[in-house]
Amino acid sequence: MKNRITELFKIKYPIIQAGMVWCSGWELASAVSTAGGLGLIGAGSMHPETLSEHIKKCQKATSNPFGVNVPLMYPQVEEIMKIIVDLNVPIVFTSAGNPKAWTEPLQEEGIKVAHVVSSLKFAKKCEEAGVDAIVAEGFEAGGHNGREETTTFCLVPMVSKGISIPLIAAGGIASGRGMLAAMALGAEGVQIGSRFAASVESSASQKFKDLIVGSIEGSTELMLKQLTPVRLIKNKFYDQVKAAELSCANTETLIKLLGNGRAKRGMFEGDLDEGELEIGQVAALIDHVDRAEDILKEIWNEYLLEGKKLGEMIISAKQ
Amino acid sequence: MKNRITELFKIKYPIIQAGMVWCSGWELASAVSTAGGLGLIGAGSMHPETLSEHIKKCQKATSNPFGVNVPLMYPQVEEIMKIIVDLNVPIVFTSAGNPKAWTEPLQEEGIKVAHVVSSLKFAKKCEEAGVDAIVAEGFEAGGHNGREETTTFCLVPMVSKGISIPLIAAGGIASGRGMLAAMALGAEGVQIGSRFAASVESSASQKFKDLIVGSIEGSTELMLKQLTPVRLIKNKFYDQVKAAELSCANTETLIKLLGNGRAKRGMFEGDLDEGELEIGQVAALIDHVDRAEDILKEIWNEYLLEGKKLGEMIISAKQ
Repeated sequence: MKNRITELFKIKYPIIQAGMVWCSGWELASAVSTAGGLGLIGAGSMHPETLSEHIKKCQKATSNPFGVNVPLMYPQVEEIMKIIVDLNVPIVFTSAGNPKAWTEPLQEEGIKVAHVVSSLKFAKKCEEAGVDAIVAEGFEAGGHNGREETTTFCLVPMVSKGISIPLIAAGGIASGRGMLAAMALGAEGVQIGSRFAASVESSASQKFKDLIVGSIEGSTELMLKQLTPVRLIKNKFYDQVKAAELSCANTETLIKLLGNGRAKRGMFEGDLDEGELEIGQVAALIDHVDRAEDILKEIWNEYLLEGKKLGEMIISAKQ
Repeated sequence: MKNRITELFKIKYPIIQAGMVWCSGWELASAVSTAGGLGLIGAGSMHPETLSEHIKKCQKATSNPFGVNVPLMYPQVEEIMKIIVDLNVPIVFTSAGNPKAWTEPLQEEGIKVAHVVSSLKFAKKCEEAGVDAIVAEGFEAGGHNGREETTTFCLVPMVSKGISIPLIAAGGIASGRGMLAAMALGAEGVQIGSRFAASVESSASQKFKDLIVGSIEGSTELMLKQLTPVRLIKNKFYDQVKAAELSCANTETLIKLLGNGRAKRGMFEGDLDEGELEIGQVAALIDHVDRAEDILKEIWNEYLLEGKKLGEMIISAKQ
């Protein structure tokens, strides 16, 4: 399959593994890229020297293109970007910040730049800033999220109509059927987080992976809207946040409650009570911890199979 | 096209116009049914004698099957059901209540019964209760909504995997692309509300229709979660609810603020300040007030066109 996304990133399948804090190090990113998708190292949870190591290991592990996801609010973003340029990483996904600041400097180094948004308004700003592709991420996605609460089903066609650069859909996608639906809505590729967070190669704690596999509908909720909205699995920490929000706690109280290092504690160290456990609604549809390669193959094969079935049904439909 | 939904309801296209308070009387329902979809009269905003009139007018206006949507919390539900049976309405969509109470009595009269749910858990209960079809409605849908906040993108595959009776997707669908995505996720039909609320034949106020057409991303929000969650357009009434919720108003205060008759005042009488304006997120994608027949044709043609394109792309993709 060839489209603007596979051509842009020089990949076989238009399937991108989301760069996620505490889940997507070199092992996951290289496994996805080797299997023909686009693997992303999540820089958001790494010190600059850690990122440097992960990039080098990823380069040794795969000869295929991979990228780094950089949240632009990251305090040492200049240092991070220097490492990326120096180590010749070909692709950067930026998020959580203004795309104007880094798009041109990175592109001047030959790097392809995609930016993650949760609204059409911001997608248009990204297009103006010259990014090569946009990731539109719906309300159902895990982790940090938009304030408009626009779902993937509404956001993807909205952004697809409003911009002309290639569009990657994210949020709620964990299967070939989900990929097919995203393509039907106007995307040319998909970014998948939760499913890969629960993969063998994910650096997340096994306890967190098991919790994802065991979660059902209603297991997550978008919380901390006063700070930055974030979708969390309901655990003891969630209960504390929920109680605080229901009793109208102010921003200061919520910041104090959140504290520091909870995401690491939960997702990486496996403290399922006190940790901040970021995952998407689609976790309810994830039933196994699989190898990244198998996930990619399964999604691609289901996409082809269901796409053919749907296409044949429609082509044979009487008009 | 033939599938379990078109066969069940004896319709040409598996497109159902949602039964909506203050929008879907006999004019809309008969227009949709005449054009080959399934029109539903929304009983939720009608006195029994009004419903009786609407059914009779609908029968005169179309010879095709149509149905009535009955919220089971409706105080005079027995009277409503008697009218439906006496007037030989062939299809009933029930919502907001226990499907066990009415499914069998209606089916014994030869009536087909579908029930609207927002969760897999409730979908399974419906299947046990023997309903003929299920409508799974996501978080993005207008009006009353589920507590789990599961979006259409996650809900439809979940319900599709969990039940074996025919599934209709709802929430976020206003176009052929949306319909295609819903079918990709496992639905066999779609229920469309907002788009038909803004149709020529909708009984909503022209002011409300214009507001729908003018709305953009972020124009709606799911409110009143302490009572029954409902998706509203942001207006002066919304501002009051938002302020009350942010200051931790109790249930009593919210009930008092909501008062009586606000939905009629807003959607039917056109008081855009003080009215309760129920609409889906997909309103942002609706740009014209069109005739029901044209909406149906446009959705069906786009579904076929985009489906063929997607199918051909996939069939030609190298594996």
